[in-house]
Amino acid sequence: MHIVDLTKTLAQILLSRNWALSLAESCTGGLICANLVDLAGSSEWFERGYITYSNAAKTECLDVPEQVIEIYGAVSEEVAKAMADGARVNSGSNVAISITGITGPSGGSIEKPVGTVCFGWSTENQTSTKTMHFDGDRQNIRQQATEFALSELIALLRN
Amino acid sequence: MHIVDLTKTLAQILLSRNWALSLAESCTGGLICANLVDLAGSSEWFERGYITYSNAAKTECLDVPEQVIEIYGAVSEEVAKAMADGARVNSGSNVAISITGITGPSGGSIEKPVGTVCFGWSTENQTSTKTMHFDGDRQNIRQQATEFALSELIALLRN
Repeated sequence: MHIVDLTKTLAQILLSRNWALSLAESCTGGLICANLVDLAGSSEWFERGYITYSNAAKTECLDVPEQVIEIYGAVSEEVAKAMADGARVNSGSNVAISITGITGPSGGSIEKPVGTVCFGWSTENQTSTKTMHFDGDRQNIRQQATEFALSELIALLRN
Repeated sequence: MHIVDLTKTLAQILLSRNWALSLAESCTGGLICANLVDLAGSSEWFERGYITYSNAAKTECLDVPEQVIEIYGAVSEEVAKAMADGARVNSGSNVAISITGITGPSGGSIEKPVGTVCFGWSTENQTSTKTMHFDGDRQNIRQQATEFALSELIALLRN
């Protein structure tokens, strides 16, 4: 599905539940929020976004424990989980998405190459996380991460 | 100047001062952050963004007083000032930009028609604000607001 259709589909699901969504974006840097807000009427279901690009921002805005970042690294499912939970709780939203990854060109390693992106989806009842490896340049990776974050949330809420 | 060139120019200025930038975006919904992060190496000067779409987010993330929103409205230079100051202080950045506006299609009034966008630019020494009226659809208005916010900051930092 194209990003516009993903956004419309997600909006319908959130509206039908009367749910508010918040975002915690690191590597996508606001791209998901910007796509959500492209849709007129998004204020009915989009609450806020935390663009926590630095580690300090992750800790201060989302209550990600410093030790979790130190032990697992900023790009890890552990940090993605803490970011998603923090975004949901701190915003008072029903659901939150988090994204933290390495979009390059630098910053990659053998263990976590460029294109590694960790995701979290948090609701009151559960938090799930996933790690994906995307090919492409900085823009491609962020675009794929945006589409994946939204389509997975749609699948999750439909189950 | 095209948005990519604006971003590059701004990055050079911030790097030369060793300054960090944060954003407080309402109507642009993350579009400015997303454009900044498009540039590789942006983590050297981009700290974080607060996508404070709701009034609650403006108050909780940026310490915008509820009374200021009530008295002047969310789209006002008073709120833009408080958003920019809040983003700068709460992020510990040297400079912050804020944007709050009406991108339509609904939400306009005679006093504040669709296309009205208020901006704030905050440094330790001064905070300036402006109101602009942009023509076009939702996407056009947000694009113009993004370019204006960055070019005004460049002009401000060059003076």
